[in-house]
Amino acid sequence: MMRTGVWLVGARGSVAATTVAGALAVRAGAAERVGCVADLPGPDRARAPGIGDLVFGGHDVGGPPLPKRVGMLAEGGVVPPALPGLLEEELAAVEARIRPGAARRPERGQREAAARIGEDLRRFREEEGLDRVVVVDVSSTEPALPPDGPEAAATASADLLEEALDRGAAPLPASSLYAYAAFRAGCPVASFTPSPGPRLPALEETALREGLCWAGSDGKTGETLLKSALAPMFAQRALRVRSWSSVNLLGGGDGETLADPANAGSKTASKGQGLRSMLGSEVGGPLHIDYVPDMGDFKTAWDHVSFEGFLGVRMSLQFTWAGCDSALAAPLVLDIARLTARAHEAGETGPLAALGFFFKDPAGSGEHALSAQWDALVEWCTRLGEV
Amino acid sequence: MMRTGVWLVGARGSVAATTVAGALAVRAGAAERVGCVADLPGPDRARAPGIGDLVFGGHDVGGPPLPKRVGMLAEGGVVPPALPGLLEEELAAVEARIRPGAARRPERGQREAAARIGEDLRRFREEEGLDRVVVVDVSSTEPALPPDGPEAAATASADLLEEALDRGAAPLPASSLYAYAAFRAGCPVASFTPSPGPRLPALEETALREGLCWAGSDGKTGETLLKSALAPMFAQRALRVRSWSSVNLLGGGDGETLADPANAGSKTASKGQGLRSMLGSEVGGPLHIDYVPDMGDFKTAWDHVSFEGFLGVRMSLQFTWAGCDSALAAPLVLDIARLTARAHEAGETGPLAALGFFFKDPAGSGEHALSAQWDALVEWCTRLGEV
Amino acid sequence: MMRTGVWLVGARGSVAATTVAGALAVRAGAAERVGCVADLPGPDRARAPGIGDLVFGGHDVGGPPLPKRVGMLAEGGVVPPALPGLLEEELAAVEARIRPGAARRPERGQREAAARIGEDLRRFREEEGLDRVVVVDVSSTEPALPPDGPEAAATASADLLEEALDRGAAPLPASSLYAYAAFRAGCPVASFTPSPGPRLPALEETALREGLCWAGSDGKTGETLLKSALAPMFAQRALRVRSWSSVNLLGGGDGETLADPANAGSKTASKGQGLRSMLGSEVGGPLHIDYVPDMGDFKTAWDHVSFEGFLGVRMSLQFTWAGCDSALAAPLVLDIARLTARAHEAGETGPLAALGFFFKDPAGSGEHALSAQWDALVEWCTRLGEV
Amino acid sequence: MMRTGVWLVGARGSVAATTVAGALAVRAGAAERVGCVADLPGPDRARAPGIGDLVFGGHDVGGPPLPKRVGMLAEGGVVPPALPGLLEEELAAVEARIRPGAARRPERGQREAAARIGEDLRRFREEEGLDRVVVVDVSSTEPALPPDGPEAAATASADLLEEALDRGAAPLPASSLYAYAAFRAGCPVASFTPSPGPRLPALEETALREGLCWAGSDGKTGETLLKSALAPMFAQRALRVRSWSSVNLLGGGDGETLADPANAGSKTASKGQGLRSMLGSEVGGPLHIDYVPDMGDFKTAWDHVSFEGFLGVRMSLQFTWAGCDSALAAPLVLDIARLTARAHEAGETGPLAALGFFFKDPAGSGEHALSAQWDALVEWCTRLGEV
Repeated sequence: MMRTGVWLVGARGSVAATTVAGALAVRAGAAERVGCVADLPGPDRARAPGIGDLVFGGHDVGGPPLPKRVGMLAEGGVVPPALPGLLEEELAAVEARIRPGAARRPERGQREAAARIGEDLRRFREEEGLDRVVVVDVSSTEPALPPDGPEAAATASADLLEEALDRGAAPLPASSLYAYAAFRAGCPVASFTPSPGPRLPALEETALREGLCWAGSDGKTGETLLKSALAPMFAQRALRVRSWSSVNLLGGGDGETLADPANAGSKTASKGQGLRSMLGSEVGGPLHIDYVPDMGDFKTAWDHVSFEGFLGVRMSLQFTWAGCDSALAAPLVLDIARLTARAHEAGETGPLAALGFFFKDPAGSGEHALSAQWDALVEWCTRLGEV
Repeated sequence: MMRTGVWLVGARGSVAATTVAGALAVRAGAAERVGCVADLPGPDRARAPGIGDLVFGGHDVGGPPLPKRVGMLAEGGVVPPALPGLLEEELAAVEARIRPGAARRPERGQREAAARIGEDLRRFREEEGLDRVVVVDVSSTEPALPPDGPEAAATASADLLEEALDRGAAPLPASSLYAYAAFRAGCPVASFTPSPGPRLPALEETALREGLCWAGSDGKTGETLLKSALAPMFAQRALRVRSWSSVNLLGGGDGETLADPANAGSKTASKGQGLRSMLGSEVGGPLHIDYVPDMGDFKTAWDHVSFEGFLGVRMSLQFTWAGCDSALAAPLVLDIARLTARAHEAGETGPLAALGFFFKDPAGSGEHALSAQWDALVEWCTRLGEV
Repeated sequence: MMRTGVWLVGARGSVAATTVAGALAVRAGAAERVGCVADLPGPDRARAPGIGDLVFGGHDVGGPPLPKRVGMLAEGGVVPPALPGLLEEELAAVEARIRPGAARRPERGQREAAARIGEDLRRFREEEGLDRVVVVDVSSTEPALPPDGPEAAATASADLLEEALDRGAAPLPASSLYAYAAFRAGCPVASFTPSPGPRLPALEETALREGLCWAGSDGKTGETLLKSALAPMFAQRALRVRSWSSVNLLGGGDGETLADPANAGSKTASKGQGLRSMLGSEVGGPLHIDYVPDMGDFKTAWDHVSFEGFLGVRMSLQFTWAGCDSALAAPLVLDIARLTARAHEAGETGPLAALGFFFKDPAGSGEHALSAQWDALVEWCTRLGEV
Repeated sequence: MMRTGVWLVGARGSVAATTVAGALAVRAGAAERVGCVADLPGPDRARAPGIGDLVFGGHDVGGPPLPKRVGMLAEGGVVPPALPGLLEEELAAVEARIRPGAARRPERGQREAAARIGEDLRRFREEEGLDRVVVVDVSSTEPALPPDGPEAAATASADLLEEALDRGAAPLPASSLYAYAAFRAGCPVASFTPSPGPRLPALEETALREGLCWAGSDGKTGETLLKSALAPMFAQRALRVRSWSSVNLLGGGDGETLADPANAGSKTASKGQGLRSMLGSEVGGPLHIDYVPDMGDFKTAWDHVSFEGFLGVRMSLQFTWAGCDSALAAPLVLDIARLTARAHEAGETGPLAALGFFFKDPAGSGEHALSAQWDALVEWCTRLGEV
């Protein structure tokens, strides 16, 4: 049996904690696989590693210990009240495998920082006897790189990046530093956030040099998921969407991060781009992401779509999505980790376009329509299963 | 150039009037093809007859003359205020081709009634020099046949039906009488309503005997359209739908008809069946259709979907669809008529499964998911275009 | 200090259990008085007995023991997870004061049944040393009495009722039997349900003969509460409401009871009547109450209001209310019990019109507008406080 | 019979045009008084001048001629299609009484500008033989005055303002310039916008010196109206509102103006302040005003209220308000003008607190709850009627 490591960057956050607690609960028979796509007929043909075969570790720069975080999630209604007690020992074992994140370690430069991260990954692989380790970024959103700054220049190619690291520069945002270290340590990468991560040119090139695959970015868990199901309907029915307005009320950690417009920038960009592609033209309407602390781990999104039908008649669609971000994200994190591990085993390299089903900003693919993404996923999984 | 006749059963109703006025407006360059699927990339490969090449006629048992009905629609905001004036002559010409419907003519039996209807169809074809006539039922909803009654027995096969007609019986509901007459007159049929129409066993057999194709049933214009876009999303994301509650507030003629539970029965049955198929299991929740006269030609539907994600977390989706039924239906009526005409030209027989995209209760197909229906439609249109 | 008994008919149901657990939690300092109107500035002038001074008992015909029911409510998210443990002993003490309900005791006639109920009430008052006992009906909804049946005849006056009881008849629905027994035992009554209870002519007369006050009926906890806040807005702004459509999706015990149209009848009647009074004319639109089991103790109501403004422009308001019925009801039950006790102390008799603020179908008052009801409540409380 | 002039600042805008067209239509018997509060039982006791007795004139700095604007409103569905033709002559007569606004006339200083405006008002009064003229500002929203700038200093008192005008300064925003000119010309003022208008200290003082009354500000037409009906409900039920999030999607002219954050500032301030007062504490949640051009004269507002009930249970209320701004505003403009005229006749001075019912930011009153405002309005109207 293959043993697969899942290394979570941001390992003490809500998404990571729900992912780990959920996987352990499934293994213990205390939870069902609701929300787990890789076990559905179709995607299951890939023969990805089972949830029970995953071993978790990760980096974080702080946060409450994992068992405590899971307790907090239980209080917030995200995980069942009995889970923290039931999984106490196993959560403590994962906590013991969480290493200080980059920002918390005094380092002379990013060359050294990457080396230490790589060392953490190698040690995890060896100590746990793992066949491979997938590094999944579930940390808070970072701002995009300014397009004309020195960081963008230094990350424009793998060679330029190596030069910059050699001379002690630190051009990488944290998410990309982890991706770089992962690639250099032979680990495939998945980026669940809108942060730059593996998507800088230098990083994409590094992945290819190392013969590795990667997946990203920005998990499609809520309002954008609905857009990707509904926008094709308007297109296929030749209905003319006139405006599509979106409001997201978020509590929780991600909401707070996104309250800073600098960080929200990368999120709103990644949320907005699909509509144009699915509807075939630019569509107006605001896109708000608001931090509403009292909502806790839950979020409510409201979308208002104004459209025109035959003979110019004006109509509208509104929807309200009231969901739990961590509970929506966690099974996708498991899916992505498992399928990326399977792709790595099968020798795939570069961006895994077929995983676009899971992402707001699918790497390697311009397809945003959910059903087309599903078809591509199933086809790819079928092919993988035959390898 | 092929000339295609479109014979509307219920020719003075709102849907028929919007269809005719819209087609004439498009031909006159006074309206765009918003909502017209057959002209989209993909379906356009079928090379269906153009909207401008359609000639309209029909049956009705009463109602205001077509120009008057179009005027009423303009007052209700369904068609632009300028249209009734602009199209006055052409609407009067169509009105002149509307013949008294079955219920308005004293007839000794359904054999004779069918003969008269067939005569109307043949005369339309000849007088207008048409290559073919597609009969489209856009009349009010009829109740389903009681499963154990004598009508069901007499319509269980084509032979039984012919026997019954021979002995002067009248086992056919009006919608099926029109379909029978159409088939016997060599016309393909499309059923835009949930009425029995061509779907009785005797009728299906008659179509085959005559070598004709047909399409049905119950145009998918609103809330069910949304269901068919959204339910697959839940299934593909492995989210467990716990209940799906639906409320439809309808003004207008159809609303009034559906206020009678006997008639609503066939509607709610056809609305309800898709969910089970798309979600893979029975899902609870009420389905209401209410007549709210003040809404006029507009309708508002509210759906509440309660679902469960990972670790049992409860979430919900609500949507409100505020649309104009006739404006949503009319371009589909044109699409269905045009594609059925093209299928007839290409020699197809039996139910046109690939038109399931347009229907709540797709004949010849168990597929309800909109994107899968779209793919099937495009594939079929591509094939048709190559004939 | 006055000691007030609250005797709950339906003492093991969700509303009763939330009421008792909540009151005990407030007394223990483990919960705040959120939702408690009698403690707000204005109503507090009545100087009603404090929540901590209430002693609970009740009747029920079955159901899980109260501590178990509270545990179920904790699982359902209605009461905090820690509460069942914290209140274990006190809940057991209340459970020990719950007596078998009428339907569970073999009795020769309603005369005897009423006597036994009265005995239960008197024993409660004496054993607990209470100054008074308010009987509050929070049991499941009963159908209305058929207006032309023998029960209606026998309950048309107090004399007729006494005669009927004397000859061994059983004309009273259960809710009215409890109210009769309570009045004969000298206890004021509050009816939180739409059941007949104290509202039959014979019962109203009995209350007066005994010099007792009573309150009712049908607690205004959700969608009707919103109607009573919003309908006056339309009236005061001279906006013309054209239709008001309402849908209530209920899980839980009451939902199940109301799925039976016979029972729902009294509920929909009591929900519907206010609109006419507040808007000044009849307004169309359906009113649905649906049982959707998966919603548990929660309910979601959707209302669609179509209205017309200046120059005939059509507009709409929709709202969705997602609430927990028991949590909305429980503090009102406490309020009503406390204020009815205070009114009894002050010697009030007959229906307590000023408590209309709490009810869908206010006894003794035709006022349904919430703010007017609030003003009347505050004025009455002020007056009570001066007694 | 008294003749009352209504002088509209922004006389060619949508609100003004709807106001004038509506009043003329009512006088012509072509429209009902839907939305007209001053004619309801209660407010009608004031015996305000009738809609038919109003004579309109105004200022504007541009815009299409009034008959054209009304035609545009008919196309947009705000006024009935027949109205522009029916009222052609009368609209032209009002257009002839529209004078160039302040910004369009070369003037040496605000002293001179005010003099010219005053002259326009006096000429209107004389030429039309009016008993009085009420000046109503329905122009676009202006930004608030920077609190520490020289304009604030120069408008801190009537004396300081006169001094500043004497030395040729121009400290007044346009809305306040009109108000100043109106007061000096003996005209009462009503401010339907959130612009500073009569609310600067110097202006309030000027009104008193001239013995004039005024009303304001910012007409309460939509989402804030609902807040003022719903927030008291939460307060009176002791429910704890945790966040109240508001989104307003506006097309039309006001939407465009408000897309500029500088202008929106005064709007969002005036929209936000009521909640705190009605709920008794600060409540979080975003307040967005978005310009969505395709919505035309219509607007859709979505509010999400998260609240807590007994025992900490979390619940929510959402509403969607889809309305036509001009149609909601116009009858209120008439109400305010008529009642202000009546107050002037009765000799009232200073801010008309009882008109707070109509305003988001009621001058002279801290009351925001709709029902309390209604009661105050009725009481005041009753008193006025007795003068």
